[in-house]
Amino acid sequence: MRDEQKIIERIREVVPSSPRASDLLVGIGDDAAVLRPPSVPRRDWVLTCDSFLEDIHFLARVHSPEAVGYKSLARATSDLAAMGARPRYFLLALALPPHRTGKWLDGFLRGMAAAARSFGLVLAGGDTSRNATVAISITVLGSITPGRAVKRAGARPGDVLYVSGTLGRAQLGLELVLRGQGCNPRWKQLLATHLRPPLRLALGEWLARNRLTSAMIDTSDGFSTDLAHLCEASGVGARVWLDRLPKVSVPRELRARGLHPDQLALHGGEDYELLFTVPHRQAIRILASFGRVPLTSCGEITREKKILLVGAAGRTTPLPRGGWDHFRPR
Amino acid sequence: MRDEQKIIERIREVVPSSPRASDLLVGIGDDAAVLRPPSVPRRDWVLTCDSFLEDIHFLARVHSPEAVGYKSLARATSDLAAMGARPRYFLLALALPPHRTGKWLDGFLRGMAAAARSFGLVLAGGDTSRNATVAISITVLGSITPGRAVKRAGARPGDVLYVSGTLGRAQLGLELVLRGQGCNPRWKQLLATHLRPPLRLALGEWLARNRLTSAMIDTSDGFSTDLAHLCEASGVGARVWLDRLPKVSVPRELRARGLHPDQLALHGGEDYELLFTVPHRQAIRILASFGRVPLTSCGEITREKKILLVGAAGRTTPLPRGGWDHFRPR
Repeated sequence: MRDEQKIIERIREVVPSSPRASDLLVGIGDDAAVLRPPSVPRRDWVLTCDSFLEDIHFLARVHSPEAVGYKSLARATSDLAAMGARPRYFLLALALPPHRTGKWLDGFLRGMAAAARSFGLVLAGGDTSRNATVAISITVLGSITPGRAVKRAGARPGDVLYVSGTLGRAQLGLELVLRGQGCNPRWKQLLATHLRPPLRLALGEWLARNRLTSAMIDTSDGFSTDLAHLCEASGVGARVWLDRLPKVSVPRELRARGLHPDQLALHGGEDYELLFTVPHRQAIRILASFGRVPLTSCGEITREKKILLVGAAGRTTPLPRGGWDHFRPR
Repeated sequence: MRDEQKIIERIREVVPSSPRASDLLVGIGDDAAVLRPPSVPRRDWVLTCDSFLEDIHFLARVHSPEAVGYKSLARATSDLAAMGARPRYFLLALALPPHRTGKWLDGFLRGMAAAARSFGLVLAGGDTSRNATVAISITVLGSITPGRAVKRAGARPGDVLYVSGTLGRAQLGLELVLRGQGCNPRWKQLLATHLRPPLRLALGEWLARNRLTSAMIDTSDGFSTDLAHLCEASGVGARVWLDRLPKVSVPRELRARGLHPDQLALHGGEDYELLFTVPHRQAIRILASFGRVPLTSCGEITREKKILLVGAAGRTTPLPRGGWDHFRPR
């Protein structure tokens, strides 16, 4: 078991915490971080925080500490992708039981360091405390050209609805883990998105910089729920074509066990793909992919404030929020 | 029980969340908050986060939800006082069991709203999730004149050590609460600092603005522990005069029950007073009080890296870190 000072030293050793830029005047180890926004070029700052809690967002008996470290930072940083911002600094509030301060903490920090390097983040401060279970809270600060942050509000009737990547991958991985298949080498590829979700940071920045999108959100709670959030904020509805959705491909053996691509794609959480709307005249500028990330037009925004799913046979049904709501009775 | 959307609506209703200034472009309800730092006057930004956890930082059976709401925000904001910064915005990551989403949440938000108004803070965003226990994490953003933030590092041998207010008050209140005396009207005054700690924001700003102090920290973990933090960061030691310390006054009846002012003042946590060092030639500018807050010179900084306590009879002993360390074996 390490004491508080040793834990902080270990964090500092493993996680990138030296600023590359000169705008972090005081980093970890003081009461607070001090930052100096550059006057030229001017930037807006984008700030978000997210919890990542044992037994809620991860299960210590099935998720490795590396995966917990990686995902906790990914979850918070994805909100920056959804605004089109570039990640800069993060704060880590970490609460641990004493038996997690040794080997488990080391694994956690390795995963977090890998995520920080991948996302371009530098640790600027935080807080440590003891707790009965692991409770992580992460604050991420990003920057963006003034006025270019993309909100959830802004979608207009007639806009085209796009989604990046593939939907349902992370949920498929979670289902496998929950069914005790997390170490089965046959499904290794299928677990990747669940354990180490890729973030769409470059795509988000590109969309924002070029003013291509009228509204944007990341699919953290699941396509159906996040689309509802976007529509509600924009005061609009949407029509989604089920057969256009970029659905996860599920091996026949797993389909037979009840894992269906439609359900996974519509309601599965934690893909951290970008869901965004593009005014009709701009849609020509959205190609079939951004680098290696597919971009799929899968619906349209409607004046009527309902979210409808158009099935394979052209049959239209309401699309309920089937994704993640912490307080919805199950 | 409320669902996630209802919880967010309730937070927005109760806690100040409309910006008074124009630098918050996007507030709560989106993926992230967007801020535009003013170019004139230029400001450094000061950023900190703190956890506030059930059974660690508070006990739901003895602390009212109002006190939890107030203290959780005070704890995080005090770190800004310790840098000399002015509080501006905060983010709230709130995890709750379903049975706490009704009346308990309302009380919590009332307490938090009172603190936010008192500290001049506006809620800019956050995150809600379910959890087995209440887990609060708060990020606070403040601003300060460029280059004026006061660090823990910076104390030099010969500097005079000052502390604001009175030490041990919060710990006395906690001890009363733990002994089942939290509702005893005789001790009402003694509980105030524990339940609603005053912050030294104006004092911190004044000290920083006038460059009066070489190093500063808030007494959140307790005088002995926080002095050790300051000395360690500065690479110095200190000598403290026990009879100069502004100790809490303890009624005779409570002294008889083992509550001693020396122990409470030296090692009691959560007073959130400011502990700061002043170069000798500047000490003349520190008056006996700042407004109604007493300022007491209680020691001096030494070259030798030891922290020594000079007792009433002139006897010198090492001052151990007796305050709060989450991972110290007890």
